[in-house]
Amino acid sequence: MTDSSPYTPDRPFSAPRIVQWGECDPAGMVYTTQFLDYVMETLEAFWRDVIGYSFLRLHKELGFGSPTVSTKLDFQRALKGGDPFTVELRVEKLSRSTITYDFKGRNAAGEVCFTGTHVSCIVDEKILKSVEIPDTIRGPIEAYRRATTPQV
Amino acid sequence: MTDSSPYTPDRPFSAPRIVQWGECDPAGMVYTTQFLDYVMETLEAFWRDVIGYSFLRLHKELGFGSPTVSTKLDFQRALKGGDPFTVELRVEKLSRSTITYDFKGRNAAGEVCFTGTHVSCIVDEKILKSVEIPDTIRGPIEAYRRATTPQV
Amino acid sequence: MTDSSPYTPDRPFSAPRIVQWGECDPAGMVYTTQFLDYVMETLEAFWRDVIGYSFLRLHKELGFGSPTVSTKLDFQRALKGGDPFTVELRVEKLSRSTITYDFKGRNAAGEVCFTGTHVSCIVDEKILKSVEIPDTIRGPIEAYRRATTPQV
Amino acid sequence: MTDSSPYTPDRPFSAPRIVQWGECDPAGMVYTTQFLDYVMETLEAFWRDVIGYSFLRLHKELGFGSPTVSTKLDFQRALKGGDPFTVELRVEKLSRSTITYDFKGRNAAGEVCFTGTHVSCIVDEKILKSVEIPDTIRGPIEAYRRATTPQV
Repeated sequence: MTDSSPYTPDRPFSAPRIVQWGECDPAGMVYTTQFLDYVMETLEAFWRDVIGYSFLRLHKELGFGSPTVSTKLDFQRALKGGDPFTVELRVEKLSRSTITYDFKGRNAAGEVCFTGTHVSCIVDEKILKSVEIPDTIRGPIEAYRRATTPQV
Repeated sequence: MTDSSPYTPDRPFSAPRIVQWGECDPAGMVYTTQFLDYVMETLEAFWRDVIGYSFLRLHKELGFGSPTVSTKLDFQRALKGGDPFTVELRVEKLSRSTITYDFKGRNAAGEVCFTGTHVSCIVDEKILKSVEIPDTIRGPIEAYRRATTPQV
Repeated sequence: MTDSSPYTPDRPFSAPRIVQWGECDPAGMVYTTQFLDYVMETLEAFWRDVIGYSFLRLHKELGFGSPTVSTKLDFQRALKGGDPFTVELRVEKLSRSTITYDFKGRNAAGEVCFTGTHVSCIVDEKILKSVEIPDTIRGPIEAYRRATTPQV
Repeated sequence: MTDSSPYTPDRPFSAPRIVQWGECDPAGMVYTTQFLDYVMETLEAFWRDVIGYSFLRLHKELGFGSPTVSTKLDFQRALKGGDPFTVELRVEKLSRSTITYDFKGRNAAGEVCFTGTHVSCIVDEKILKSVEIPDTIRGPIEAYRRATTPQV
């Protein structure tokens, strides 16, 4: 990513979606487990579209995986069937082998419905140990982080 | 399986379950996609518990997979959240490389709520071609089929 | 839909997608249950975008539901993680209270990977009985069927 | 629950399970989203079997719901296809309208593979506001909490 990055602090990578009927429970609300699907969908799309490595390419070409270290979801407002929403992804921190993501799910009015803090690490699948994130991956993540972090 | 098979035509392998809240849609009924999960859950348990090969063991030890050729579900009665039900599995036909299964989902009253006809084949994952089902697998399947097929 | 329908026999309603890592099994292939999710995703989008009634609007405004009568999937070619594909929806038959859909999943080369035949009916949720499909729904479905059916 | 409670600090309510093939990703490990399914499965079973109210009964008889306030998962050890495991549920805290649960997923060796901290509240679905947990529910939860909390 260069100066021509399409992403800014106010316009991070985001995945637009509409809540499906089948994603809701008998109370008409999105069922809890579905929110982690939304987060992981967005994370997979970010790797593919922004970093340039799908999880599959990461696995096949580099023999690396990206297991989850921890994931936390906080719920502020309900989402109901048919509601349009977007999931924004920001990179909060990039360490030697771990990446901390910040997710924000917003409804059509822009209100935050849920937030997520998600930490994953990069492991060498042969030894199942965390490794230093290689530059081909670190580069695009760091560029994205800079483009979407507000300047103080 | 020998004469002491625990399975009979009237008591085939079956997986007891209770419909979960999160498996139901806003109309309070089990959502369509969930039924194929019930079928596949039962199929995986059958391979593990009756055939003696989990799909994973099949994959790791033999390098074989069991992809689905076709699957058909017919719905007769709705299942709602909290409803107990069982999914019965019978083997309808065992060919050179394909297996045809018959599934029956029954509610607590024993009424059939859905039926499934499911065909899968055994493939060598290296060449991605169907192969003759090996005897270590054919044996238990054929014994099960005989034990659960009504004598005419 | 009028003469200006964007849909033709060769360009029916379709949902473009990319296979996600998390949708694949340890053999690297899309797991069986996921295909019914693809079909239902497409069906929900068709109701919302083409018929103009989401399943939720159908439920809330008309008190109607659209339960599945039967669904059948046939598999021709595997889909792997990262594969782009589309699911095409056609309406094969429109009866008094049932609709028969035809689904075709195609890979990037346009080859058919799976097909689906799906029958659902329209029920009045209060009496749980099938009803005549009302004109506000029948109209757009019939117009779509005509636009996408090859003229002989 | 009385003195004869089957639950103790060392033997809390737990749901035994085997990792299914279809729950694993191409690296052979349980995919991230699946863990929240395990947690919610266990939570639903706890409400039904220990509290005596399924989420459905809560919804239908009391007009109450139990939405998630926050959920956090931490991963220590991978689970692979075929692995047996159990998910233990403990009640950490019971407040006016919220319940804090502690989940521990253990493999066959008893090692902790993942932990979860899950907070949900009880709401009146008509006004969508949190309410004081009624005694019919508070009673069994508090009895369970006491039975499974180590005495100091």
